[in-house]
Amino acid sequence: MCNKNGVEWSIRVGDGSSMALEPEHTHEVTRLWDRLKGLVVRFVTRVWMFLKKAWDLGVDDPRKFFHCLKVGVALIFVSLFYYMRPLYDGVGGSAIWAVMTVVVVFEYTVGGTLYKCLNRICATFLAGFLALGIHWIASHTGHQFEPYIMGISIFILASATTFSRFIPIVKARYDYGCTIFILTYSLVSVSGYRVDHLLHMAHERLSTIIIGTCLCIITSMVVFPVWAGLELHLLVPRNMDKLAKSLDCCADDYFGHGNEESKKNLQGYNCVLNSKASEESMANFAQWEPAHGRFNFRHPWKNYLKIGASSRSCAYCIETLTSCLASKNQVPESIKNHLESACMNLSSSSSNVIRELATTVSTMTRSVKIHMAVKDMKNAVKELQNDLKSLSDLLIQPNDHEEKYEPNDITIMPLLEVIPLVSFASLLIETASRIEENMMKAVEELAESARFKQPEDEVNLKKNQRAKNNVSNEENAIALQLV
Amino acid sequence: MCNKNGVEWSIRVGDGSSMALEPEHTHEVTRLWDRLKGLVVRFVTRVWMFLKKAWDLGVDDPRKFFHCLKVGVALIFVSLFYYMRPLYDGVGGSAIWAVMTVVVVFEYTVGGTLYKCLNRICATFLAGFLALGIHWIASHTGHQFEPYIMGISIFILASATTFSRFIPIVKARYDYGCTIFILTYSLVSVSGYRVDHLLHMAHERLSTIIIGTCLCIITSMVVFPVWAGLELHLLVPRNMDKLAKSLDCCADDYFGHGNEESKKNLQGYNCVLNSKASEESMANFAQWEPAHGRFNFRHPWKNYLKIGASSRSCAYCIETLTSCLASKNQVPESIKNHLESACMNLSSSSSNVIRELATTVSTMTRSVKIHMAVKDMKNAVKELQNDLKSLSDLLIQPNDHEEKYEPNDITIMPLLEVIPLVSFASLLIETASRIEENMMKAVEELAESARFKQPEDEVNLKKNQRAKNNVSNEENAIALQLV
Repeated sequence: MCNKNGVEWSIRVGDGSSMALEPEHTHEVTRLWDRLKGLVVRFVTRVWMFLKKAWDLGVDDPRKFFHCLKVGVALIFVSLFYYMRPLYDGVGGSAIWAVMTVVVVFEYTVGGTLYKCLNRICATFLAGFLALGIHWIASHTGHQFEPYIMGISIFILASATTFSRFIPIVKARYDYGCTIFILTYSLVSVSGYRVDHLLHMAHERLSTIIIGTCLCIITSMVVFPVWAGLELHLLVPRNMDKLAKSLDCCADDYFGHGNEESKKNLQGYNCVLNSKASEESMANFAQWEPAHGRFNFRHPWKNYLKIGASSRSCAYCIETLTSCLASKNQVPESIKNHLESACMNLSSSSSNVIRELATTVSTMTRSVKIHMAVKDMKNAVKELQNDLKSLSDLLIQPNDHEEKYEPNDITIMPLLEVIPLVSFASLLIETASRIEENMMKAVEELAESARFKQPEDEVNLKKNQRAKNNVSNEENAIALQLV
Repeated sequence: MCNKNGVEWSIRVGDGSSMALEPEHTHEVTRLWDRLKGLVVRFVTRVWMFLKKAWDLGVDDPRKFFHCLKVGVALIFVSLFYYMRPLYDGVGGSAIWAVMTVVVVFEYTVGGTLYKCLNRICATFLAGFLALGIHWIASHTGHQFEPYIMGISIFILASATTFSRFIPIVKARYDYGCTIFILTYSLVSVSGYRVDHLLHMAHERLSTIIIGTCLCIITSMVVFPVWAGLELHLLVPRNMDKLAKSLDCCADDYFGHGNEESKKNLQGYNCVLNSKASEESMANFAQWEPAHGRFNFRHPWKNYLKIGASSRSCAYCIETLTSCLASKNQVPESIKNHLESACMNLSSSSSNVIRELATTVSTMTRSVKIHMAVKDMKNAVKELQNDLKSLSDLLIQPNDHEEKYEPNDITIMPLLEVIPLVSFASLLIETASRIEENMMKAVEELAESARFKQPEDEVNLKKNQRAKNNVSNEENAIALQLV
């Protein structure tokens, strides 16, 4: 309508030039039309950009598309209970609960789905039985007390359960179960007062929920499963690799070897800083998952969180390190040259250790090279410390042409100019010590509790290399969705 | 049963000493009994500890207790639709939806409740209409096509909506709405094929949901409301204060002025590092809240996130700073004394700026003292830089007893021993520059967009001080729940 009116007006404007009676009005009309056109164009562009972004999101990680199709398929399957008469007669009108279960319970990862399914079933079961029991007691106390007993019990149980959701461990593992517990208890006890065929209702609700959850579990586990455990197992070493790259790029950039590519990689530590929440939720979901791939049921997922925390502690250091880059030009070239090789050495050997640890985690095989790498890193630290020690000599430059020093002849290079480089170097040393103390320890703990394989000989080594390549292929396939 | 058996056995053991026939068996029994007793005791202790912790959680923040009572009261109210006949006859059997709504929708903060309520109502409305429309179209194409059309439409809509949940902005604001949309559409269209009084059902569901949501909104907004916006408004300056305290304690500890109290406060920056997720969820919920207290409907909550991010960037620096504390004893006392006053000055003036900014945020009044504080901080930076400059002289100590220097007479203090202090100082300078560049800017932006009051004269100043005191009282009351 608006559009059409606009067109009419603009035509009027076209031949309105002869009609000098209302020039202001026509002006206003064109302005309004222009503004309207602008609005529509902007709106369409925005919607288009939004859709394009959404599409890119799916193209980057096709498993997201698969997940959506899986939800659709599961819903169609559960609708069959309604559409096909024989099934319908079997389960009755409460097939609605099965539909509801599928919609509410189906999550992206297997662990998430299992968490919700198990919580839903257990909470429904528990609340149903409790409601039946209290209903039975209440019905034996006389009809006039019944609503009071039921009301008070709802009040107490709902309040207590709501409170339990504030407790961190309950919140993490049974939050959904708490909601379902209150829900089922209220529904069963409230309808119990009315409906009278309470047991039948509880049974029906439970059976339809079981149908729904089974469908969800099967669909999520069989068709292109996304295991939260595997995601976590890939995310943690990927983050470590990013950290290593950041560290390398930081040193490169400081000594002027950086390029566009390295400037981009430099920001990798940000991913590490921001991945705490996703790591925690994945570890939480992974605990619900059965054995899959190379992981047992009781795989120590908590240890991955420790490695994540140690990565973050290194990332804090690297974040501070990057702020040194701003002052890199203040440092005299001679001093820079003096420390360059030691700094580059330390950063590359540190990132080597991180990479080696990442490989250990991703291949689940103890590394033969790690001790060598750590030794290299320690040597590099010593080398840098020595270079820092000899820096004092460099700071005091004798005037060449004289044999004997007079106090005034000593040119002392201003220490202030050297400080940025000194603090850069000492941050590098601090990063190395955090890698050794936190990250190595965390990986060692994981290797211990997950019983990582021992590398036996060269043949085994090659095998592991191949396995690692497979992992990185897997990784590439699902690369961007976790970023 | 077990317990009783155990007691019997232990008595048998008592007089079993004369019965030498089965000593091994009785030994086993006592061992079993002991183990059982141990198990029970451990279980009881664990449950007791758990309950005690839970109770402390509530005592620390009584609003958690109130929230639980509120949920209970709301549930009792909604149950009245069932228990009281006249109401029941009005709304019909689907009052179950009202109960369900209350259980699912009631959140701790007003913003959370509103987010869920509005999402639920809008999504139900939209999905209901869409389902009715498609059902109408399908019913006009002939009976045999109807299930196929409905099935395909469910599949497409469910997949598309599930996909939209991967888009970050949809996930943050409409995640719950998406679930309810799929749920309602499936329920209405699936039951539509069976029940035939579709319009009636959609209307009933909508009206009961509105009853439930209204009850939730009123309860959460009127009885001891917990505003997500206010929580965020208190959390951000509280975190800044913690940061300031950490910085102070860090410098105190380095120069040996620390005590037990300061060691505890030193860890305050950890709260800042870990509060990203809670800040984001609060800002998200706050956007749904109406005007309350000193906040308009369109209060710029996003700016609080920026201040939070700038606090974290300072916290990274302070985290690195604390790792310098380990090496504080390596530095010679003379050098430490040389830099002590400048370092202490810079840390205290930096923390002063942070505190002043925190006061600006919490009182929503531009500070008159902030420019002075920043000037102090800049002067302290210059002072420290000068002291670092003159450090070079200190490093070269002439041997007192000689008038003329020979090259070998110059004692050069090893630079390596000074490096920890130098990097400590340069990290302090970096922290100061981050405070000035990030935090000041973020607070300035908030002051701009939230139109903070201008301090006019001394009278106003005093008023603000009083307002600030009130805020900190509020803060104390709800202190621990956000940590």
